[in-house]
Amino acid sequence: MFEHCIALLKERGVNIQDINDCVMYLQKDHETGVTNDEVSETVNSIIQKREVQHAIMTGIALDKAAEQHILDDKILEDIINRDESLYGIDEVMAYGICNLYGSIALTNFGFIDKDKFGIIKELNDHKDNPNICHTFLDDIVGAIAASAASRIAHNQREVVGSKDAK
Amino acid sequence: MFEHCIALLKERGVNIQDINDCVMYLQKDHETGVTNDEVSETVNSIIQKREVQHAIMTGIALDKAAEQHILDDKILEDIINRDESLYGIDEVMAYGICNLYGSIALTNFGFIDKDKFGIIKELNDHKDNPNICHTFLDDIVGAIAASAASRIAHNQREVVGSKDAK
Amino acid sequence: MFEHCIALLKERGVNIQDINDCVMYLQKDHETGVTNDEVSETVNSIIQKREVQHAIMTGIALDKAAEQHILDDKILEDIINRDESLYGIDEVMAYGICNLYGSIALTNFGFIDKDKFGIIKELNDHKDNPNICHTFLDDIVGAIAASAASRIAHNQREVVGSKDAK
Amino acid sequence: MFEHCIALLKERGVNIQDINDCVMYLQKDHETGVTNDEVSETVNSIIQKREVQHAIMTGIALDKAAEQHILDDKILEDIINRDESLYGIDEVMAYGICNLYGSIALTNFGFIDKDKFGIIKELNDHKDNPNICHTFLDDIVGAIAASAASRIAHNQREVVGSKDAK
Repeated sequence: MFEHCIALLKERGVNIQDINDCVMYLQKDHETGVTNDEVSETVNSIIQKREVQHAIMTGIALDKAAEQHILDDKILEDIINRDESLYGIDEVMAYGICNLYGSIALTNFGFIDKDKFGIIKELNDHKDNPNICHTFLDDIVGAIAASAASRIAHNQREVVGSKDAK
Repeated sequence: MFEHCIALLKERGVNIQDINDCVMYLQKDHETGVTNDEVSETVNSIIQKREVQHAIMTGIALDKAAEQHILDDKILEDIINRDESLYGIDEVMAYGICNLYGSIALTNFGFIDKDKFGIIKELNDHKDNPNICHTFLDDIVGAIAASAASRIAHNQREVVGSKDAK
Repeated sequence: MFEHCIALLKERGVNIQDINDCVMYLQKDHETGVTNDEVSETVNSIIQKREVQHAIMTGIALDKAAEQHILDDKILEDIINRDESLYGIDEVMAYGICNLYGSIALTNFGFIDKDKFGIIKELNDHKDNPNICHTFLDDIVGAIAASAASRIAHNQREVVGSKDAK
Repeated sequence: MFEHCIALLKERGVNIQDINDCVMYLQKDHETGVTNDEVSETVNSIIQKREVQHAIMTGIALDKAAEQHILDDKILEDIINRDESLYGIDEVMAYGICNLYGSIALTNFGFIDKDKFGIIKELNDHKDNPNICHTFLDDIVGAIAASAASRIAHNQREVVGSKDAK
């Protein structure tokens, strides 16, 4: 199922390196000294988790179904296609990922969801194109990046000890 | 959107009274003295909330799309149709409802999700019929009932004061 | 209990107006036209909720107990006093508040927790003073502000309809 | 910090075996074939997680502070000592643990929190003794057991494949 998810992400325009860049951005204020390879490894480990795979598949399926206009419920289809600002099921699904990585992941997600960066901004900007829908995908990518940054923070501290304050 | 959600629930075999019965079941150990009309009112007030409406619409849309076999992702479609035991996005969506009503709602949901009752059992039993999928709906109904029971508990205590322990 | 919580917040250096300012900051990119009085009203309505009151009381009790060095567990006391960066129970408690106001509240909290503003920054800056501990309070204030901003967004949209995208 | 948490649990009357028994109870409807040693190992792995350790320490610190009547806030102290039925911060802290182990952990927790079993019942029954407070501890023990049962379910399915429905 891992390969399936990587392929789905790629098909929708997201590479692991795009997610890595978001992780690096989230860490920019911390001297982590983590290499791109290590970030890749962490991002991959997150996508290996079954619950994360289910979120990726479900979110992309909803985006695609809305794009293809095949949903019976046209009210919902329209809400998803417009990424209606008070529609929050995409964030609910993103929190389903972040929760697995603790409170730092949730805070990271909230930050990158507001201060959109890199691929998240690109996905989000597509929304003026009526034929493309990334309502769920941008939040899922943000959640994976936020979780990876959280995991790296936890691992770093295990090595160097915890001296600095939040 | 409220009428739309009530109609969707009905189309999928769920009436307000079915949800009321679950609420009553969740309260059976407490002397609440709440009437069926009051339970109805609470259940309706929950379905009036925008985030709850979005969850109802999205969950039912996924159930129907799986049933109709119109999703591109056949791996996911199969997981949803079988209600695969480790697929948890349905519960994630249910928690999106319960969270709005606090920790008692979450506990109630966990209980009724294991000790299936009434309409929740009926929806769940359909799963041997390959043409019917209620993977999301049974959890959404459980979440609405759990939230209603929580709200009633909070309101009761406001009236009579809080003497009994948890 | 409402008056008790307002008094506790004041005693620890937080006035309703300080929270209002954070709400205004969170809304700065949206043309809400909401007045300071309306923000006050919303902030007050949040503090009127029982679960929020419990979080305020519990968080401040932990901050004060750490400050007074009266906890048996000196390892924990030290973690709280230093606001150890991987200690996340303060955020867990804040999410207990935000969850009641939906996914927008969670996103708002993540943002203001990273991009500290106003009273949240002030509370946080105290941490070099070994005699003052606001480990829980800054997150609780952030959660109340994030919840108020979310509630205002939801109410606004009810009036003007939802046209703009997220 | 692991040894510290094990010692704290023991001091408060909870052994790993007590938690194992709850895990076994949660799995009673599933043919898992998991041995007591394997359950022990899983329970230990959960207590090794930093966020879980923080929850154990913070919850027990609040229970003990309430017992010792050393909190400034006598209203809160009384609420905690009585385990007031609408006080939900203990569950919020428990969800902070369960969330790390996904939606099955949350459902398990809701079930065992209502259908109290073994050590959880014992801790809860103490509440008539005015000198003993386990308001937080019973929920923390429930959360660890619920998380362990969830982890075992996930691991089992990795080995045998997933055929049965939820």
